[in-house]
Amino acid sequence: MLKLYYAANSCALASHIALEEAGADYEVMALDFAKEEQKSAAYLAVNPKGRVPALITDQGVLTETPALLLFIAQSHPGANLAPLNDPFALAEAQAFNSYLCSTVHVAHAHMRRGHRYADDPGAWKAMSAKVPGAMAECFEYIDRELIKGPWVLGDTYSMCDPYLFTLTTWLAGDGVDRTAYPNVDRHYQAMSERAAVQKVLPSHPGSYQDLFNTAKD
Amino acid sequence: MLKLYYAANSCALASHIALEEAGADYEVMALDFAKEEQKSAAYLAVNPKGRVPALITDQGVLTETPALLLFIAQSHPGANLAPLNDPFALAEAQAFNSYLCSTVHVAHAHMRRGHRYADDPGAWKAMSAKVPGAMAECFEYIDRELIKGPWVLGDTYSMCDPYLFTLTTWLAGDGVDRTAYPNVDRHYQAMSERAAVQKVLPSHPGSYQDLFNTAKD
Repeated sequence: MLKLYYAANSCALASHIALEEAGADYEVMALDFAKEEQKSAAYLAVNPKGRVPALITDQGVLTETPALLLFIAQSHPGANLAPLNDPFALAEAQAFNSYLCSTVHVAHAHMRRGHRYADDPGAWKAMSAKVPGAMAECFEYIDRELIKGPWVLGDTYSMCDPYLFTLTTWLAGDGVDRTAYPNVDRHYQAMSERAAVQKVLPSHPGSYQDLFNTAKD
Repeated sequence: MLKLYYAANSCALASHIALEEAGADYEVMALDFAKEEQKSAAYLAVNPKGRVPALITDQGVLTETPALLLFIAQSHPGANLAPLNDPFALAEAQAFNSYLCSTVHVAHAHMRRGHRYADDPGAWKAMSAKVPGAMAECFEYIDRELIKGPWVLGDTYSMCDPYLFTLTTWLAGDGVDRTAYPNVDRHYQAMSERAAVQKVLPSHPGSYQDLFNTAKD
């Protein structure tokens, strides 16, 4: 059985949804970042990076969301979560996920993780101030160029969709209005109606709260 | 024929080496970042992100190094640049490349690309000051945990190797002594002796200069 370590409001939500969509045999284990459980000796023995997600498999531990998503897709081919046998289409999917992890997630991390990038609290404040604009620029680009619609890769739902959904749940906290991006907003609504998303969200209280508040707006 | 857009001292070196290792039918086109050619209308029509690498294929344009490396590997299976049919091994390779793009490259970018993350020049200075320590921490982790040796994935050379080599060439400019990391240093030396690397480096004057200076140290 696969075991996914995650934390609320983290990018691990993407892998959790993908495991559910794949019909995988899995369980989840929540870490409380407020208690710094990701820095505990027990967890560092699992993942020396002290981050989530980490996926425990029969063959060892995997980290990094784009890698977990591809692993889930490739090890559950019946779920058709990635165009595995089309090099160009798979590269487009990987390019999307790589943009999310190296540009969008990084832009978001400057809101509350400035200590990764500078030691001066004044600089953390300057970084936080830029996050709404940086995230808005990313989502404007995603909305205009990347979502083929209705799903990220077009007619077929894929591993890219839970990843985009996860980062979209961060927009409200980053001071960005999701509804300014119509393709992103339609994608978010469509994702929130999927059975897999409805099933896993209660395990992710922060993200769930965000969705709940949004639905009431 | 494939066409790779690159710039000197950029992460596009990894894809250039991989194309050469794969025996691909390709050509390269250099952009001069000092002249901001990546922001020209002509190039933005190719890649709206205004970044490199971009790979022009018969089916369209691909961006993001981890995606290009997987595409090169999958479309040239005879070169055996990735464990394509082993989901766990491929995920380990993707996790390595994802760590390089979302953590190591990002740490490096805070040296001279602080404007991406804050508008205050004082914050840029604080970010630059943290880069040597952040890059040292990344390479200490790569050296201790990630390089299986002699190549990143073990006995078999893969798409991960030119990517690690490329980021290793940045260490001197980031104020980090590569020789403090013996596995990284051995990897760098082994890479510098490969025919593909010797062939492409003259097209990358900054990286070449770095290697040349290092060899004379």
